[in-house]
Amino acid sequence: MSSPRPGRTVDVDVLAFEADSATRKSDAVVTEEPLEIRLAGGGKTQTLAVTMRTPGSDFELAAGFIFSEGIAGSLERIAGITYCVDPAVEDAQRYNIVNVELHGELPELARFERHFTINSSCGVCGRAQLDSLHDLGVAPIADEVRIAPETLYALPQRMREAQRIFESTGGLHAAALFDERGGAVAVREDVGRHNALDKLVGWGLMNGKLPFARSILVVSGRASYEIVQKSVVAGIPIVASVSAPSSLAVDLAREFNLTLAGFLRDQRANVYSAAERIARPR
Amino acid sequence: MSSPRPGRTVDVDVLAFEADSATRKSDAVVTEEPLEIRLAGGGKTQTLAVTMRTPGSDFELAAGFIFSEGIAGSLERIAGITYCVDPAVEDAQRYNIVNVELHGELPELARFERHFTINSSCGVCGRAQLDSLHDLGVAPIADEVRIAPETLYALPQRMREAQRIFESTGGLHAAALFDERGGAVAVREDVGRHNALDKLVGWGLMNGKLPFARSILVVSGRASYEIVQKSVVAGIPIVASVSAPSSLAVDLAREFNLTLAGFLRDQRANVYSAAERIARPR
Repeated sequence: MSSPRPGRTVDVDVLAFEADSATRKSDAVVTEEPLEIRLAGGGKTQTLAVTMRTPGSDFELAAGFIFSEGIAGSLERIAGITYCVDPAVEDAQRYNIVNVELHGELPELARFERHFTINSSCGVCGRAQLDSLHDLGVAPIADEVRIAPETLYALPQRMREAQRIFESTGGLHAAALFDERGGAVAVREDVGRHNALDKLVGWGLMNGKLPFARSILVVSGRASYEIVQKSVVAGIPIVASVSAPSSLAVDLAREFNLTLAGFLRDQRANVYSAAERIARPR
Repeated sequence: MSSPRPGRTVDVDVLAFEADSATRKSDAVVTEEPLEIRLAGGGKTQTLAVTMRTPGSDFELAAGFIFSEGIAGSLERIAGITYCVDPAVEDAQRYNIVNVELHGELPELARFERHFTINSSCGVCGRAQLDSLHDLGVAPIADEVRIAPETLYALPQRMREAQRIFESTGGLHAAALFDERGGAVAVREDVGRHNALDKLVGWGLMNGKLPFARSILVVSGRASYEIVQKSVVAGIPIVASVSAPSSLAVDLAREFNLTLAGFLRDQRANVYSAAERIARPR
């Protein structure tokens, strides 16, 4: 196979300005390329989504995406995941197209459409978003794990260490999973925050680790609605962000009994929902 | 009008952990709500996109989005922008639906579809993304503005000041436009980086300021493909990020002669393309 497979970084020439000097040097930038996720089944193939992503863990990204959207609730639904084998597609593009082959017929994608572009007849509001998760059969999180505040405080530093271990380039968004004692389980990275979490969830799906019981997710960016939504579907009881959550993320976390912590820095954290999972000091 | 109009922030109860204490307090979180953008024209109405956004500058967001996608190249194409007036839609949801009324018939949306979900028959790759911009009739940026490095270095601090002036809550993503002397022209904010830029471009479209000639855009997050794509379409000659660019952002900036600076911090910046617009010191 001589087709060029995109790497995680690309070296580019750069003019580096510093105060009143400018020097030419080479700099590694994170690769961003589109990935098309196709669903195949019953002799049909259909494009599900196109996302801009950092190459690497592409199969996990595709698996995590279709799991989060409720298309494949378990690994048994998936017959195989491959890069594009369509001879009409140029070599250079094959690694930007992932086919997910489902057992049996393709699902009726219109059924899922409101999760991508919301049905206009019902209007759009945060409430409708929350209801659509209930409609998917997602239940509130019953996980009774308890962790000490010190365990939580230690996680951002441990995420940075895990990123180094996993040969990270740094500077990417990360989603890291920890066990209840604060031990690193897995970490994934991407230019996109949502993609990093999809890769992590896809890893869990492909390795029989779902739901992510008694675990803690740490994300490098802010906690938006989509981050919490994917976490609820993956059964993660505790989600922590080093940054701020959004209003809809808080609403969703409360509705589905997920513990949402924000501004996790140094010896501090704000807990917005289901705070009983963080043992109160004293 | 008694319908509740969503604000930019919402107060929520939070349990604030610090070291070994935990106290209950109230905290303002940024509002995140879906916005549906509808196109109307020739007696037809169609949903164009649904995006999660922070309420505020919604008309600008819609205008900027359709401009960036090549649907309305000028203000003359737009007959009006309104919140939803459909009596079938509940009051609470009206501020989450914006109708953009076009003069004449609706465009053939299939024509634009590859800009949202790329045509699967042509495969997907960064090259195809760049070509699709050429197909839209977007030309390389000919703007011959020159700025001094010191002007560039001063901008992140000026963006933070501008965010305060515009009564920001802080903590949101920002897109700020400056003139060639470093004076603040406009700043917009959102939970989403792309939305902040769409709002800024929409402001320009609605106020006859496009193209944004002889100007500098500063974005708070990293410079991704989409940030540079929207900047090219808006004719912005210089784009600076306090963080890293992606590989495809660099490719696009080079192809369209846009000056792309990254890691703009203190007295430093890396310039990835069209560096001649930054006057070399000495």
